[in-house]
Amino acid sequence: MSNQTGSVGVVTPQRFVFEQPLQLDCGRSLPHYELMVETYGRLNAQASNAVLICHALSGDHHAAGLHAPDDKKPGWWDNCIGPGKPIDTDRFFVVALNNLGGCKGSTGPTSLNPETGLPYGPDFPLLTVSDWVRSQARLADRLGIRQWAAVIGGSLGGMQVQQWSIEFPQRVRHAVVIASAPELSAQNIAFNEIARQAILSDPDFHGGHYAAKGVVPSRGLKLARMLGHITYLSDEAMRAKFGAELKSATPAFNFDVEFEVESYLRHQGQSFVDRFDANTYLLMTKALDYFDPARDAGGSLLAAYRKASARFLVIAFSSDWRFSPARSREIVRALVAAGREVSYALIDSQLGHDDFLMPIAQYHGVLRAYLQRVAEEVA
Amino acid sequence: MSNQTGSVGVVTPQRFVFEQPLQLDCGRSLPHYELMVETYGRLNAQASNAVLICHALSGDHHAAGLHAPDDKKPGWWDNCIGPGKPIDTDRFFVVALNNLGGCKGSTGPTSLNPETGLPYGPDFPLLTVSDWVRSQARLADRLGIRQWAAVIGGSLGGMQVQQWSIEFPQRVRHAVVIASAPELSAQNIAFNEIARQAILSDPDFHGGHYAAKGVVPSRGLKLARMLGHITYLSDEAMRAKFGAELKSATPAFNFDVEFEVESYLRHQGQSFVDRFDANTYLLMTKALDYFDPARDAGGSLLAAYRKASARFLVIAFSSDWRFSPARSREIVRALVAAGREVSYALIDSQLGHDDFLMPIAQYHGVLRAYLQRVAEEVA
Repeated sequence: MSNQTGSVGVVTPQRFVFEQPLQLDCGRSLPHYELMVETYGRLNAQASNAVLICHALSGDHHAAGLHAPDDKKPGWWDNCIGPGKPIDTDRFFVVALNNLGGCKGSTGPTSLNPETGLPYGPDFPLLTVSDWVRSQARLADRLGIRQWAAVIGGSLGGMQVQQWSIEFPQRVRHAVVIASAPELSAQNIAFNEIARQAILSDPDFHGGHYAAKGVVPSRGLKLARMLGHITYLSDEAMRAKFGAELKSATPAFNFDVEFEVESYLRHQGQSFVDRFDANTYLLMTKALDYFDPARDAGGSLLAAYRKASARFLVIAFSSDWRFSPARSREIVRALVAAGREVSYALIDSQLGHDDFLMPIAQYHGVLRAYLQRVAEEVA
Repeated sequence: MSNQTGSVGVVTPQRFVFEQPLQLDCGRSLPHYELMVETYGRLNAQASNAVLICHALSGDHHAAGLHAPDDKKPGWWDNCIGPGKPIDTDRFFVVALNNLGGCKGSTGPTSLNPETGLPYGPDFPLLTVSDWVRSQARLADRLGIRQWAAVIGGSLGGMQVQQWSIEFPQRVRHAVVIASAPELSAQNIAFNEIARQAILSDPDFHGGHYAAKGVVPSRGLKLARMLGHITYLSDEAMRAKFGAELKSATPAFNFDVEFEVESYLRHQGQSFVDRFDANTYLLMTKALDYFDPARDAGGSLLAAYRKASARFLVIAFSSDWRFSPARSREIVRALVAAGREVSYALIDSQLGHDDFLMPIAQYHGVLRAYLQRVAEEVA
């Protein structure tokens, strides 16, 4: 029986090693790569119930469950993945991975470069969403999954979903694109550029070779993360969460924390420095900037989606200003024009872009209903 | 006769020295201060045609005209101030100044501290909008202006206008509040905080004593300005201006400039470093954060505006997301509730917050018509 609030319990990440070189869009190739993976639920005999979860900028393979019984925090999408949850592990075999270029165990800038025996650092190739999708396709091969029942992702994850549907149309039955965009806007790129400049201009960056110097560009990475957080939250949510009230009745007239929002941002920035790699951050922002399936199809998003054959669910959040509902509607319009079958849900939300990670009833209801139909197709 | 596109011509800034100590909100006082000022037009015999221009974050006293006949660029609001222009120097005596704490000649962090004989640097007191208004009131006294025909300002300048109307009700006949807000939102404060952290964490900042070290925190100040620019432009304007297209047909896979918007931001950031002081930037952002007339009136904006007696013109721009029209409507609603006379104009605009500096026909038409009536009162 499904438990509506079930957990997948304690999970153990698996390392998948790929010895065949992976040709990358930048022209270089990786002779060897590894992916850290978690799976939840059981693959059925026809291998027709597999769901791929694509992570966003700072996500990883630990999407659900715990790594130890006394873990304080579950995986990043635990509220949505589990027995009886919208992505129901009683029905689906769910695969989550840390993307190539990441810093949570998959091959990336912190990995050893076999040519030098030292960490790649800035010599790790910059990647595209397509590179990720092709590396994920090999993972699917390894797992014996010819076609995903669904590929699901939010934000940058939603870009991977789009790319999957275009590049491997026969391997995606349903594409669930959440809080995403068909490409970055100039403003999105501007935010990324400032985040990159914060890291690149940090004297502790050392051209990316900071590990060899025994330092991290913590100031730059902290600023980058603080800036990211502004775009993850709506103005209204910040107002509701922090207000614009001084912590004390009168100004302190110094640069200590005076407003709640300052405290929040400094904390978010600092904790990110402790768990994330700056070269990976740079790489992830570049992959975002480069994503543009229309460019790859002669300037036409419609032409790009003509290659797809999946059925689509596109979900946007009313309070999201990073990838606003208007960007999701661009995707929907192009899909409709391309003759694809598409459902669109606009979720009333408050928090902003981060809402795609939240257990909003309307949102989880839409996901649950859609994926129940997907599950029935494969039952 | 008015020349519709007239220039005030070559102007010479004047330095006003104030020897009487100025008590500041932070509890400290300035024993002596100087203000750099420009004036355009002629004060009439009754001193009833004076208009004060309050500048925004990075503005100064050079609002109109040229400093030399071959100057490439006129003052920052030259499109609006001059003979026959909306702020008509054939009718008004226009006063513009560099605010206290500035870095364009008025007493600020780059000035010598009389107690030490060295530049104030970070020892310059943090200021409030009220401090500025009180320093400006002394300038009015010096000029023999008992009451301004109008006090006009955009953005942070509009906050000074609000403060003038509340703190010196008898000295302001008309208050023109443009693209402003009744206080910062949490998101506004968040942007300021990241800008500050960029400067404060720059190793060349040296706790603000960078001048003594012969350096400037250029990385931090550059990041701060780049970040500011994101908030000055609408997403749509960025899209129209820069698109999200790569400069070359394919990605370069490095961190050089690849998108037009990156080039724009880096240029804006760098040129700002060459003309602005980091301690002043910090001070200006804090003055923004602290502005909150409602707090000063027991938590009620209505109560704050009850003290005012000016007539108000409030102007907002549809594409402004830094201080959106909703923020201007907060001001208007409070003014109406307080029984003040207020006109409100929402200008259809594209560029974003920066539109308050642009010669938009609808905008200048509203300003011109309003100020013509003001001029007729004093004729």
